[in-house]
Amino acid sequence: MDDDDLRRGKPSCHKQFDDATALLVGDALQSLAFEVLSQPDLCTQASHQISMLSILAKASGSTGMAGGQAIDLESVGKPLSQSELENMHQLKTGALIQAAALLGGVSGNSAQTKAIRIYAQNVGLAFQVIDDILDVEADTTTLGKTAGKDAGSHKPTYVSILGLADAKQHAQLLYNNAIHALASFGNEAARLRELAGFITQRRF
Amino acid sequence: MDDDDLRRGKPSCHKQFDDATALLVGDALQSLAFEVLSQPDLCTQASHQISMLSILAKASGSTGMAGGQAIDLESVGKPLSQSELENMHQLKTGALIQAAALLGGVSGNSAQTKAIRIYAQNVGLAFQVIDDILDVEADTTTLGKTAGKDAGSHKPTYVSILGLADAKQHAQLLYNNAIHALASFGNEAARLRELAGFITQRRF
Repeated sequence: MDDDDLRRGKPSCHKQFDDATALLVGDALQSLAFEVLSQPDLCTQASHQISMLSILAKASGSTGMAGGQAIDLESVGKPLSQSELENMHQLKTGALIQAAALLGGVSGNSAQTKAIRIYAQNVGLAFQVIDDILDVEADTTTLGKTAGKDAGSHKPTYVSILGLADAKQHAQLLYNNAIHALASFGNEAARLRELAGFITQRRF
Repeated sequence: MDDDDLRRGKPSCHKQFDDATALLVGDALQSLAFEVLSQPDLCTQASHQISMLSILAKASGSTGMAGGQAIDLESVGKPLSQSELENMHQLKTGALIQAAALLGGVSGNSAQTKAIRIYAQNVGLAFQVIDDILDVEADTTTLGKTAGKDAGSHKPTYVSILGLADAKQHAQLLYNNAIHALASFGNEAARLRELAGFITQRRF
């Protein structure tokens, strides 16, 4: 769906092989995620395991990634408000980032899944804001994928809607929200805090 | 992946809309299947529900439909033996037909899932043999999809490997095997027997 030719400095799958192969690999990997989560005795409680499968299914389909991608396709060349852009990214990339964080909470039967959900929503959006900033600021070599693609293809981005300075401030706000959401956790959330920092400060 | 433009006499999704939309709808529907199967309290026993999810995941991914489609892509224009062709179809369409039959068995905790598996393997292959026969024998209007496509695109088929008469005989053998596999069932398997008959006798 994406026209980018590079990922982490290497040709993306559809460039290295072809579109049909890339699509099939995507289908196979999506099924593999469900296969891994449906292994017998993955969790001590079967009901938790079913919840995890449900979270992943909802985050992948029309109420998650596929739905967000559909909105993205519809939105090229159209003006979007910030809330419309956020809704699209919450679905397109945010839903799976959120699912990844929630699966950990559910598998551990954490009573604090609400806090993890808020953390993940903010980290997911911060990821996308930074992506939009790097598309403008970074060069292709550092970024590992083609810079300037979004601006060139008239895709609505946080930078095109907010401007560069406000987009950076927005990323900082989302980072702060994510860290704040983890306030009730102690050192067991250190990695989640690190991840939020990495996502907000990354240069690639 | 398929060049056919018609399904049941109507334009296929990628013709009516476009490739990207058709692919996204496929992704969303695949996720929806897992969402439905992961609903809380779908089964009286959570472990049966997890088995159902596992069966669907394995039938969809690289060990099932996606893997079969990959072999299909690789096989265009190449000579295949009958067993290679059967392996491809067992994965590409057979795995999901088999999963559909097995899910019923598992959800009912049937001790006879082995019989259902053999039934479904044979019905799945029969479906494909008949598909290949109809591609040669039927006209596009009756078939509801473009006839003669496979032969035209040099795809290996049961008809190209076995010839028309032997392909028909093979379909009959697969039907007989499917019915025989259900011998230990009574009237509760009437619909499965009907389905095998419909698939083998269909003209579209």
